[in-house]
Amino acid sequence: MATLLKKIKEVSLIERFSKVLKPSGPSVIVSIGDDAAVVRGAKGFYRLYTVDMLVEGTHFKKGESYELVGYKALAVSISDIAAMGGEPQYALLSVGLPEKNALVVAKKLFKGIASCARKFNVDVIGGDTNRSDKLVIDCFVVGTVEERNLVLRSGAKPGDHIFVSGPLGGSILGKHLTFEPRLKEARFLVNNLKVTSMIDLSDGLGIDLNRVSSASGLGAVIFEDKIPKAKGVTKIKNALFDGEDFELLFTLSQRDSFRLLRMMKKNKNAMPFYQIGRMTDLFDGVRMMTRHGKVEEVGCDGFKHF
Amino acid sequence: MATLLKKIKEVSLIERFSKVLKPSGPSVIVSIGDDAAVVRGAKGFYRLYTVDMLVEGTHFKKGESYELVGYKALAVSISDIAAMGGEPQYALLSVGLPEKNALVVAKKLFKGIASCARKFNVDVIGGDTNRSDKLVIDCFVVGTVEERNLVLRSGAKPGDHIFVSGPLGGSILGKHLTFEPRLKEARFLVNNLKVTSMIDLSDGLGIDLNRVSSASGLGAVIFEDKIPKAKGVTKIKNALFDGEDFELLFTLSQRDSFRLLRMMKKNKNAMPFYQIGRMTDLFDGVRMMTRHGKVEEVGCDGFKHF
Repeated sequence: MATLLKKIKEVSLIERFSKVLKPSGPSVIVSIGDDAAVVRGAKGFYRLYTVDMLVEGTHFKKGESYELVGYKALAVSISDIAAMGGEPQYALLSVGLPEKNALVVAKKLFKGIASCARKFNVDVIGGDTNRSDKLVIDCFVVGTVEERNLVLRSGAKPGDHIFVSGPLGGSILGKHLTFEPRLKEARFLVNNLKVTSMIDLSDGLGIDLNRVSSASGLGAVIFEDKIPKAKGVTKIKNALFDGEDFELLFTLSQRDSFRLLRMMKKNKNAMPFYQIGRMTDLFDGVRMMTRHGKVEEVGCDGFKHF
Repeated sequence: MATLLKKIKEVSLIERFSKVLKPSGPSVIVSIGDDAAVVRGAKGFYRLYTVDMLVEGTHFKKGESYELVGYKALAVSISDIAAMGGEPQYALLSVGLPEKNALVVAKKLFKGIASCARKFNVDVIGGDTNRSDKLVIDCFVVGTVEERNLVLRSGAKPGDHIFVSGPLGGSILGKHLTFEPRLKEARFLVNNLKVTSMIDLSDGLGIDLNRVSSASGLGAVIFEDKIPKAKGVTKIKNALFDGEDFELLFTLSQRDSFRLLRMMKKNKNAMPFYQIGRMTDLFDGVRMMTRHGKVEEVGCDGFKHF
């Protein structure tokens, strides 16, 4: 797992890159800076492209199940497509394999990739394999989304309610290799409600809600006692900063928020969504109301007291 | 540079993978096994997807110009799209960077990527950056091709003439970092002739012509004195087995072959193409007629004498 500070450095690295590059042509709706790139597709549709690299020692440890690592490699990119409101279609995978036991490792990896591909109906249509001292897997996923269902990070409005799709924190203890991309949940949301912004929680609520706030030009206030904690997580800082939860973070207008809560009340088997706060134009950044009624700033690198 | 034997091991690794994976849906025209995957696109078009990973120590040496490495990372994938008869549109890049000097290295890499992107009119629309002990760059390119212009490895017919787009061998001495993907040449060919099969020469004429022969279910005979050698290359084995030439290898019917030769004769500024042999249904594999009138088998791992 990359430490928090490293993650933030990476963010600024990508942003620096984007300035060097050729400006995008008119078919590009969203370039670098959201969960996936968006380009024009067939009439009424956009195409989505996302890529995620997993490196041994950073995203998984040497000795962890190769089958689970393969599953995770594809699942991370499917989660990005879900966060745009779309459906994944195709995947291509590049694998850098250490020479020792290359065939055994590759077989396990691809078994995990195949199980994820079947589960989410993704066609693996290409790949490249190479020698590498440490295991590296890079996964590229192509998706599609109806124009009306596309959700960006930047669409939140003042007063919108903030939701997450599940309890947070402690993913490093194992869930980060076995999580379920919230594809079904995201498709349910975009097909039934007007989701104003969405992101998948890869770097933790602290960083990712700051991303939504910043992209939308707003602030966010969240309530400590409303933030669902994963089993075994006792401290709020783990729910905010552990990362790799891969739950959805999204915003709805107050009207749609009430509609969602009514749907959940009516149907006890409904997917669980947790309302944790609301967007505001009164300040920038993310603030949390603690259990003790204090307000703290939730930065990308932890709490700051006022 | 990967040695020849390693390359061949990689080929069989990809093929093993493809059997484990979920069978592709009906929108997939070509899955793993050609220069790029082909799926249905807008009416009259196919979409092309390709991925190539470059690893420090395998595809470039530590200390080589990062700007040239960046250029190569994108150029290799553009070459794959060209070999399908298509045009590249979008690229996404994953980069694994050593912690030391990460920003300096990234800046140079992306300068090289940007210069290649501008030259071939490709929009870089996404990426992922990570920490990695050794530098890894993985490049995905999305392309498009008119249905009538799609060229696979498998379409060669008995009697077809075999061509290459430039002199071969010695790429490791520097050209492998500065080569020009033969996009213009490939588009000229598919727009003016019926190209029956095509591949880009990434692993050398020896391996890649065997790939075309095998995919087309035919044999090939080439003539030693017709094979153009790059400047500084004196031995035929370097022209056949060095790899990373990134020239086009393609086949034309006898009629189209004569048309191409006439076009070249008429126009002295025309692109140079070299006729090196022909396809046959008399045997499998690749055989070469030497300068001395002997016939040798050109395997994936060198010559075999009869």
